[in-house]
Amino acid sequence: MPDVFVGGVGMTRVGRRSEPLPELMADAAHAALAEAGLDAPEAIVVATMNPEEFVGDGNFASNVATQMGFADIPTLRVETATSSGAAALYAAFAQVAAGLRASVLVVGGEKMTHLATPRVSEIIGRSIDPYERAYGATMPALAGIVTRALLTRGAITMREIPQVAVKNHANGARNPLAHFQEPVTLQEVLESRMVADPLRLLHCCPISDGAAAVVLTGEPTHVRVAGIGQGTDTLAVRHRRDLASFTATRMAAREAFGMARFGPERVDVAEVHDAFAPFELISLEDLGLFPPGKAGRATLDGDTAVDGRLPINTSGGLKARGHPLAGTGIAQIVECVWQLTGRAHGRQVPHASRALAHSIGGLATNNWVTLLEASS
Amino acid sequence: MPDVFVGGVGMTRVGRRSEPLPELMADAAHAALAEAGLDAPEAIVVATMNPEEFVGDGNFASNVATQMGFADIPTLRVETATSSGAAALYAAFAQVAAGLRASVLVVGGEKMTHLATPRVSEIIGRSIDPYERAYGATMPALAGIVTRALLTRGAITMREIPQVAVKNHANGARNPLAHFQEPVTLQEVLESRMVADPLRLLHCCPISDGAAAVVLTGEPTHVRVAGIGQGTDTLAVRHRRDLASFTATRMAAREAFGMARFGPERVDVAEVHDAFAPFELISLEDLGLFPPGKAGRATLDGDTAVDGRLPINTSGGLKARGHPLAGTGIAQIVECVWQLTGRAHGRQVPHASRALAHSIGGLATNNWVTLLEASS
Repeated sequence: MPDVFVGGVGMTRVGRRSEPLPELMADAAHAALAEAGLDAPEAIVVATMNPEEFVGDGNFASNVATQMGFADIPTLRVETATSSGAAALYAAFAQVAAGLRASVLVVGGEKMTHLATPRVSEIIGRSIDPYERAYGATMPALAGIVTRALLTRGAITMREIPQVAVKNHANGARNPLAHFQEPVTLQEVLESRMVADPLRLLHCCPISDGAAAVVLTGEPTHVRVAGIGQGTDTLAVRHRRDLASFTATRMAAREAFGMARFGPERVDVAEVHDAFAPFELISLEDLGLFPPGKAGRATLDGDTAVDGRLPINTSGGLKARGHPLAGTGIAQIVECVWQLTGRAHGRQVPHASRALAHSIGGLATNNWVTLLEASS
Repeated sequence: MPDVFVGGVGMTRVGRRSEPLPELMADAAHAALAEAGLDAPEAIVVATMNPEEFVGDGNFASNVATQMGFADIPTLRVETATSSGAAALYAAFAQVAAGLRASVLVVGGEKMTHLATPRVSEIIGRSIDPYERAYGATMPALAGIVTRALLTRGAITMREIPQVAVKNHANGARNPLAHFQEPVTLQEVLESRMVADPLRLLHCCPISDGAAAVVLTGEPTHVRVAGIGQGTDTLAVRHRRDLASFTATRMAAREAFGMARFGPERVDVAEVHDAFAPFELISLEDLGLFPPGKAGRATLDGDTAVDGRLPINTSGGLKARGHPLAGTGIAQIVECVWQLTGRAHGRQVPHASRALAHSIGGLATNNWVTLLEASS
């Protein structure tokens, strides 16, 4: 299989945005294409989770391509709920690796802040098993149950979880494109209102608008896609053996590291799916970046801070950069590329040569791990 | 690029179905897997156009995989409006051609008949340009405008168009899985109620439930995917130079024939996207299967009937087999494979060794051509 490289990246500021979604996506896409030195890609893969319900438009791949001035360029949409961006990257990777296209633009995004929060929650909730949904399950409710399981297992404490939010807000404060650019204190997290016991508001990522784009190419560049892995799990959370670990992440990591032929110990910086603060801790262990039961302590000790041993979510993560759903998996790649090419101004990790991006779809039903390596 | 083959195919009866959509899709998938001799595929690509609004569920790739007993198998969803099935086939083709997966199950379907027709029309209408939609455009309305343009160009008559419906109903009557299994007369078509002038009810495909599946594999079988091509066009119909021909089909055909290294004159049988009867005539010419201005006359002369020179839509086409949206592009492949392997009982084309499937997404914004060849 021929190597696949990142030709260019781009993203919008994440937050409340007034522009229509296709315009946000076009902005991100044109930035990535400009960096790649391309007037146009050979093909486009579009990631959106649910544009029909969020913005009222379908046929979104054609919609976005037309908006970008690329009505004559092959385009398709990929969706795996909240990990759609990572899945789109994989679909584009396959096209380039197969030699079907020399360059593919991957662009993802979502726009939700114009809707009332309960409506957004309902739409996102369609990614939950229908029977669990019928009993009132929402994403925060299920995340609360997962967190309870994690606490019951005893490997993590309610002192460690909020530190994830504190760290990621501190990182977001260094990222001019982040939704939240203000630090929060441990006290503020602990005193924020309860959302789904034991999760409080500041344990949860915000509802964000935004878009991100990556150009993949067969032409060697400074950053190579070293591995991509996908893992899946039952739609129903109740069908799982263990609530306090995500099988889908472990499968995805195994596949990605297998393709890359290096292990988690070689990763220098990572973007991890922290839709809820405890998910970062679960994921760090599922990914093999920290030994079982050690991620919480490591977070408290500052090991995952920008100046720590293994900086996690230097962008601010979903928690502070924000979570424009299908844009998130691609925004993670953008941050990783910026880290690997020395362009993460104000939050640069020194000598980063291998980066990991981890994206969760639904309640960990469809997770992805992407490994990027700086070309030597 | 290594060759990609069809390992197995399967589909449900199309029509009004009471089963939930994931169950229909699982039925089609398990039939295809059984034929491929696989307990499980290495990966799954799911095609649905808009499950969130049609059946109220999202995260549909995980939903369907779980329903099939494949919760642990990598799965993603691909969408390009009404051509989603063909797009999913392409995404799977890329995975196998890249060597990422040895076998990929492609399964697509839709369920709509439980909803009122105006609601279905509204949901499908989201694939139309938002500004044209704001002026009341629906798919039949736009198809009516296209048909007027075709008639104005003078190459096709209102005598030729209904013959497409007559032929395709005759074919559907020979297909036990077709939505409509009754022939219609020219008179019945001409006397059916007006839907969007000059299109009458029997010029239009029905609203159908159903699912279809194909297993792609790197292992040689009796049928090889010889070529796949994609073509796109502006979302807005008003932005096009010519209404009476679909640029997206011409692009897709050029790419597919280029990959296959044979021309339209070598095609023995074809499934063509006849969502509206005149679309079959437009498409036969756009695909290069008939010279410009000749498709109507050829249809009247019986050239495209099952016993004609180039049988078109032996399954009954969208018109009579039915149009379960994202299932359609895959159902076309199923029919082509049945023709190439001598299993199109009651409607078999003798000595068919090359087949073409043509799928239209939206109002011809995202079209696909797939070429299959019987292995010698």
